Amino acid sequence: MLINVISIFPKMFDIIKDYGITKRAIQKHLVKINVLNPRKFTKNKYKNIDDRPYGGGPGMIMTAEPLFLAINQAKSLSSNPVKVFYLSPQGKKLDQSKIMELSHQKHIILLCGRYEGIDERLLISKIIDEEISIGDYVLSGGELPAMVLIDSICRVTPGVLKNSKAIQEDSFYNGLLDYPHYTRPKCFNCIKIPNILLSGNHSEIKRWRLKQSLTKTWLKRPDLLNKLILTKEQESILHECQSKMD
Amino acid sequence: MLINVISIFPKMFDIIKDYGITKRAIQKHLVKINVLNPRKFTKNKYKNIDDRPYGGGPGMIMTAEPLFLAINQAKSLSSNPVKVFYLSPQGKKLDQSKIMELSHQKHIILLCGRYEGIDERLLISKIIDEEISIGDYVLSGGELPAMVLIDSICRVTPGVLKNSKAIQEDSFYNGLLDYPHYTRPKCFNCIKIPNILLSGNHSEIKRWRLKQSLTKTWLKRPDLLNKLILTKEQESILHECQSKMD
Ligand SMILES: CCCCCCCCNCc1ccc(CNC(=O)c2csc3nc[nH]c(=O)c23)cc1
Ligand SMILES: CCCCCCCCNCc1ccc(CNC(=O)c2csc3nc[nH]c(=O)c23)cc1
Repeated sequence: MLINVISIFPKMFDIIKDYGITKRAIQKHLVKINVLNPRKFTKNKYKNIDDRPYGGGPGMIMTAEPLFLAINQAKSLSSNPVKVFYLSPQGKKLDQSKIMELSHQKHIILLCGRYEGIDERLLISKIIDEEISIGDYVLSGGELPAMVLIDSICRVTPGVLKNSKAIQEDSFYNGLLDYPHYTRPKCFNCIKIPNILLSGNHSEIKRWRLKQSLTKTWLKRPDLLNKLILTKEQESILHECQSKMD
Repeated sequence: MLINVISIFPKMFDIIKDYGITKRAIQKHLVKINVLNPRKFTKNKYKNIDDRPYGGGPGMIMTAEPLFLAINQAKSLSSNPVKVFYLSPQGKKLDQSKIMELSHQKHIILLCGRYEGIDERLLISKIIDEEISIGDYVLSGGELPAMVLIDSICRVTPGVLKNSKAIQEDSFYNGLLDYPHYTRPKCFNCIKIPNILLSGNHSEIKRWRLKQSLTKTWLKRPDLLNKLILTKEQESILHECQSKMD
């Protein structure tokens, strides 16, 4: 998978090349990240990529042409069909199903905005295919959102995680929140490990964890439960914890 | 404001010190970012910060003690009361009102998890005050979420943005999506600037922009409109665009 990123801060993307799951995905040649700086596509003397908004008002707007040229260059880097995603507070909110959809593409282009945003004509003329927001909070640009997207895509790309079991168990895979985890030592701050986890009874442990997940989801994120179709087993465990809170 | 971050990848946070709004906030001494590596608080020979989960299962869990010691060290760095926020997919979803709340604190601690998460006893014993998620997608750790939080906090910290007007106009301030922006040249891809923006009539421009914002929000994020109490003017403009889509 080829991910082309368009950003005036290309060096910010070094961290995803240097750390964690994204580093592994790149080293294994499962994902290639290529960052293009729109400043290289400017034609004015000072390499300005922004200008004042028509109609006045605060802040600066990113000029259409350098972004358009960078997108075209990015498109030329692969013969696969490619969609352009603009990271923007106006976009549709990112969720795990979008991540799955994106992870199946051979090539995507991520456009990171800065300042007050980009010239609307990039959207009107459909040079941009989709706008994506990562949540209802205001950031200073699209770079962190693009890295969030890339990290999440890499995590579900087959072959990246050593533990492919971990992906299959993920919260937003089966739509439940995670169960509690404990590790050594047996006693921390005078709090002990739940006995069941020391029992060695794997089917009981599995049931306990599922119950913990269901209870936590019901208490903290009932909206997630409503979206799910529960199995018979899950339904009966949920009823159990809803009737008597233990 | 002091932001202490606990992370096994402290160098990842260099990018927020080196770029954009966070860089400016730090240089102006409005925000101080301090990253503590829990590995420095380990007592075993190999400086391991993780161990296998009790009860079995895939992946590794972050050990309680080094995180606990790092949190205590962070707490000792200021005499102000301090809350500990754990970035986690199980947390309450971040929104702009949470950002505003956090931005009023003198000192906060952000704990970044890796692997399958942290030992539950840090939560049970209330060493952690709150869990925060940045959205319904699965990432590989809490570092990018912590940076998202820091970027968003810096953006609303008084004195950081040159253009304090820009903050006041923000989407999630007044709850509407942004209006379209245009900048030079007058003609891009044969698409012209809306005449109104060239008219110089500032009150008409303001009204046009508000109408664009209201229409876009109504079409793309009706959930945001439902949360708002609109002014008389906004209501009448919204009715206008709802009755005849122009
Ligand atoms: C008449 C009322 C309308 C008021 C709207 C005025 C808003 C002015 N600023 C909008 C703005 C905020 C933040 C940005 C930078 N943000 C991103 O690039 C971004 C990219 S993805 C994303 N997801 C969540 N939050 C985000 O801020 C982002 C750009 C423009
Ligand atoms: C019986 C069914 C229950 C299944 C749940 C099993 C889930 C196993 N993996 C959970 C997990 C996912 C992601 C992470 C790393 N993520 C973050 O640290 C994180 C921190 S804030 C955040 N916001 C949105 N999404 C995120 O992933 C995050 C850690 C543990």
